[in-house]
Amino acid sequence: MNARNLTWSKTEKSVARQAFDSAYRRECATVAQRINAMSRDIANPTDMWRLHDFLSEKRQEIDTKYDYRYSVLIFVFARLMQEGWLHASDLDGLHAEKVSMIQALANM
Amino acid sequence: MNARNLTWSKTEKSVARQAFDSAYRRECATVAQRINAMSRDIANPTDMWRLHDFLSEKRQEIDTKYDYRYSVLIFVFARLMQEGWLHASDLDGLHAEKVSMIQALANM
Repeated sequence: MNARNLTWSKTEKSVARQAFDSAYRRECATVAQRINAMSRDIANPTDMWRLHDFLSEKRQEIDTKYDYRYSVLIFVFARLMQEGWLHASDLDGLHAEKVSMIQALANM
Repeated sequence: MNARNLTWSKTEKSVARQAFDSAYRRECATVAQRINAMSRDIANPTDMWRLHDFLSEKRQEIDTKYDYRYSVLIFVFARLMQEGWLHASDLDGLHAEKVSMIQALANM
Protein backbone atom coordinates (compact mmCIF):
# COMPACT_ATOMS: atom_id res chain seq x y z
CA MET A 1 0.00 0.00 0.00
CA ASN A 2 1.36 3.40 -1.02
CA ALA A 3 1.36 6.00 1.76
CA ARG A 4 0.68 8.72 -0.82
CA ASN A 5 -2.50 7.19 -2.20
CA LEU A 6 -4.45 6.20 0.89
CA THR A 7 -8.17 6.72 1.24
CA TRP A 8 -9.22 8.80 4.24
CA SER A 9 -12.75 8.34 5.57
CA LYS A 10 -14.68 11.32 6.86
CA THR A 11 -14.00 10.20 10.45
CA GLU A 12 -10.32 9.73 9.73
CA LYS A 13 -10.10 13.19 8.19
CA SER A 14 -11.57 14.64 11.36
CA VAL A 15 -9.13 12.69 13.58
CA ALA A 16 -6.22 13.69 11.34
CA ARG A 17 -7.16 17.37 11.43
CA GLN A 18 -7.38 17.33 15.22
CA ALA A 19 -4.09 15.48 15.54
CA PHE A 20 -2.42 17.93 13.17
CA ASP A 21 -3.78 20.95 15.03
CA SER A 22 -2.77 19.53 18.42
CA ALA A 23 0.80 18.96 17.26
CA TYR A 24 0.92 22.47 15.79
CA ARG A 25 -0.32 24.01 19.02
CA ARG A 26 2.18 22.01 21.11
CA GLU A 27 5.12 23.00 18.95
CA CYS A 28 4.05 26.66 18.84
CA ALA A 29 3.58 26.70 22.62
CA THR A 30 7.16 25.51 23.02
CA VAL A 31 8.41 28.18 20.61
CA ALA A 32 6.39 30.78 22.55
CA GLN A 33 8.08 29.74 25.80
CA ARG A 34 11.47 30.15 24.15
CA ILE A 35 10.44 33.58 22.82
CA ASN A 36 9.39 34.64 26.29
CA ALA A 37 12.73 33.62 27.73
CA MET A 38 14.72 35.30 24.92
CA SER A 39 12.56 38.40 25.23
CA ARG A 40 13.18 38.67 28.98
CA ASP A 41 16.93 38.36 28.35
CA ILE A 42 17.19 41.16 25.77
CA ALA A 43 20.06 43.35 26.99
CA ASN A 44 21.01 45.08 23.74
CA PRO A 45 19.86 45.47 20.10
CA THR A 46 21.87 42.41 19.02
CA ASP A 47 19.81 40.20 21.35
CA MET A 48 16.65 41.64 19.81
CA TRP A 49 17.74 40.86 16.24
CA ARG A 50 18.79 37.40 17.41
CA LEU A 51 15.22 36.86 18.61
CA HIS A 52 14.01 38.01 15.19
CA ASP A 53 16.35 35.54 13.46
CA PHE A 54 15.10 32.76 15.73
CA LEU A 55 11.46 33.58 14.95
CA SER A 56 12.13 33.81 11.19
CA GLU A 57 13.81 30.42 11.24
CA LYS A 58 11.04 28.80 13.30
CA ARG A 59 8.29 30.26 11.15
CA GLN A 60 9.95 28.99 7.99
CA GLU A 61 10.51 25.56 9.53
CA ILE A 62 6.95 25.27 10.88
CA ASP A 63 5.33 26.58 7.69
CA THR A 64 7.20 23.98 5.66
CA LYS A 65 6.64 21.12 8.08
CA TYR A 66 2.91 21.49 8.72
CA ASP A 67 1.70 20.46 5.27
CA TYR A 68 -1.86 19.12 5.45
CA ARG A 69 -2.12 17.39 2.09
CA TYR A 70 -3.41 13.83 2.39
CA SER A 71 -0.73 12.70 -0.08
CA VAL A 72 2.02 13.59 2.42
CA LEU A 73 0.17 13.38 5.75
CA ILE A 74 1.59 9.97 6.75
CA PHE A 75 5.12 11.42 6.40
CA VAL A 76 4.19 14.64 8.17
CA PHE A 77 2.69 12.70 11.09
CA ALA A 78 5.74 10.41 11.26
CA ARG A 79 8.04 13.41 11.54
CA LEU A 80 5.82 15.09 14.14
CA MET A 81 5.74 11.89 16.17
CA GLN A 82 9.51 11.54 15.89
CA GLU A 83 9.93 15.09 17.17
CA GLY A 84 7.47 14.55 20.00
CA TRP A 85 4.75 16.98 18.87
CA LEU A 86 2.30 14.23 17.90
CA HIS A 87 1.32 11.60 20.46
CA ALA A 88 0.25 8.02 19.68
CA SER A 89 -3.12 8.70 21.32
CA ASP A 90 -3.77 11.54 18.82
CA LEU A 91 -4.07 8.86 16.13
CA ASP A 92 -6.92 6.96 17.84
CA GLY A 93 -9.61 6.58 15.19
CA LEU A 94 -7.27 6.18 12.21
CA HIS A 95 -7.17 2.84 10.37
CA ALA A 96 -4.60 0.50 11.98
CA GLU A 97 -2.63 0.35 8.75
CA LYS A 98 -2.11 4.12 8.72
CA VAL A 99 -1.04 4.09 12.36
CA SER A 100 1.45 1.29 11.64
CA MET A 101 2.91 3.22 8.71
CA ILE A 102 3.29 6.36 10.78
CA GLN A 103 4.91 4.52 13.67
CA ALA A 104 7.21 2.56 11.38
CA LEU A 105 8.39 5.75 9.68
CA ALA A 106 8.71 7.54 13.03
CA ASN A 107 10.97 4.76 14.30
CA MET A 108 13.29 4.89 11.30
CA MET B 1 25.93 75.50 2.50
CA ASN B 2 24.91 72.07 1.23
CA ALA B 3 24.02 69.60 3.98
CA ARG B 4 25.42 66.75 1.87
CA ASN B 5 28.91 68.22 1.48
CA LEU B 6 29.81 69.35 4.98
CA THR B 7 33.23 68.86 6.50
CA TRP B 8 33.25 66.92 9.77
CA SER B 9 36.20 67.43 12.12
CA LYS B 10 37.59 64.51 14.10
CA THR B 11 35.83 65.80 17.24
CA GLU B 12 32.56 66.24 15.37
CA LYS B 13 32.79 62.72 13.98
CA SER B 14 33.18 61.40 17.51
CA VAL B 15 30.19 63.45 18.77
CA ALA B 16 28.11 62.36 15.78
CA ARG B 17 28.93 58.69 16.30
CA GLN B 18 27.96 58.87 19.97
CA ALA B 19 24.74 60.75 19.17
CA PHE B 20 23.87 58.21 16.49
CA ASP B 21 24.53 55.27 18.80
CA SER B 22 22.53 56.83 21.66
CA ALA B 23 19.51 57.34 19.41
CA TYR B 24 19.81 53.78 18.12
CA ARG B 25 19.97 52.38 21.63
CA ARG B 26 16.96 54.46 22.76
CA GLU B 27 14.82 53.37 19.84
CA CYS B 28 15.84 49.72 20.21
CA ALA B 29 15.10 49.85 23.96
CA THR B 30 11.57 51.04 23.16
CA VAL B 31 11.12 48.27 20.60
CA ALA B 32 12.41 45.76 23.18
CA GLN B 33 9.78 46.94 25.69
CA ARG B 34 7.09 46.41 23.09
CA ILE B 35 8.45 42.95 22.28
CA ASN B 36 8.35 42.05 25.95
CA ALA B 37 4.73 43.11 26.23
CA MET B 38 3.72 41.29 23.02
CA SER B 39 5.64 38.22 24.11
CA ARG B 40 3.87 38.13 27.49
CA ASP B 41 0.51 38.37 25.70
CA ILE B 42 1.06 35.46 23.30
CA ALA B 43 -2.06 33.31 23.65
CA ASN B 44 -1.94 31.42 20.35
CA PRO B 45 0.28 30.87 17.28
CA THR B 46 -1.25 33.87 15.47
CA ASP B 47 -0.03 36.19 18.25
CA MET B 48 3.43 34.71 17.83
CA TRP B 49 3.53 35.33 14.07
CA ARG B 50 2.19 38.84 14.70
CA LEU B 51 5.22 39.46 16.93
CA HIS B 52 7.42 38.18 14.11
CA ASP B 53 5.75 40.55 11.63
CA PHE B 54 6.27 43.44 14.05
CA LEU B 55 9.96 42.60 14.50
CA SER B 56 10.49 42.19 10.73
CA GLU B 57 8.91 45.57 10.10
CA LYS B 58 10.90 47.32 12.85
CA ARG B 59 14.17 45.76 11.75
CA GLN B 60 13.61 46.88 8.17
CA GLU B 61 12.63 50.37 9.31
CA ILE B 62 15.58 50.74 11.69
CA ASP B 63 18.11 49.30 9.24
CA THR B 64 17.01 51.79 6.61
CA LYS B 65 16.81 54.75 8.96
CA TYR B 66 20.15 54.41 10.76
CA ASP B 67 22.40 55.31 7.83
CA TYR B 68 25.74 56.65 9.06
CA ARG B 69 27.05 58.23 5.87
CA TYR B 70 28.25 61.80 6.41
CA SER B 71 26.48 62.80 3.18
CA VAL B 72 23.09 62.04 4.73
CA LEU B 73 23.80 62.40 8.44
CA ILE B 74 22.18 65.84 8.82
CA PHE B 75 18.92 64.39 7.44
CA VAL B 76 19.19 61.24 9.54
CA PHE B 77 19.74 63.32 12.69
CA ALA B 78 16.81 65.61 11.80
CA ARG B 79 14.51 62.62 11.47
CA LEU B 80 15.78 61.06 14.70
CA MET B 81 15.25 64.33 16.52
CA GLN B 82 11.75 64.67 15.06
CA GLU B 83 10.91 61.19 16.28
CA GLY B 84 12.37 61.87 19.73
CA TRP B 85 15.28 59.39 19.61
CA LEU B 86 17.94 62.11 19.34
CA HIS B 87 18.12 64.84 21.98
CA ALA B 88 19.42 68.36 21.42
CA SER B 89 22.11 67.77 24.05
CA ASP B 90 23.46 64.83 22.02
CA LEU B 91 24.63 67.38 19.45
CA ASP B 92 26.83 69.36 21.87
CA GLY B 93 30.21 69.63 20.18
CA LEU B 94 28.94 69.89 16.61
CA HIS B 95 29.47 73.16 14.70
CA ALA B 96 26.57 75.57 15.31
CA GLU B 97 25.71 75.58 11.62
CA LYS B 98 25.17 71.81 11.57
CA VAL B 99 23.02 71.98 14.71
CA SER B 100 20.91 74.74 13.13
CA MET B 101 20.42 72.71 9.96
CA ILE B 102 19.36 69.63 11.95
CA GLN B 103 16.94 71.61 14.11
CA ALA B 104 15.48 73.47 11.13
CA LEU B 105 14.86 70.19 9.28
CA ALA B 106 13.48 68.56 12.43
CA ASN B 107 10.96 71.36 12.81
CA MET B 108 9.70 71.09 9.24
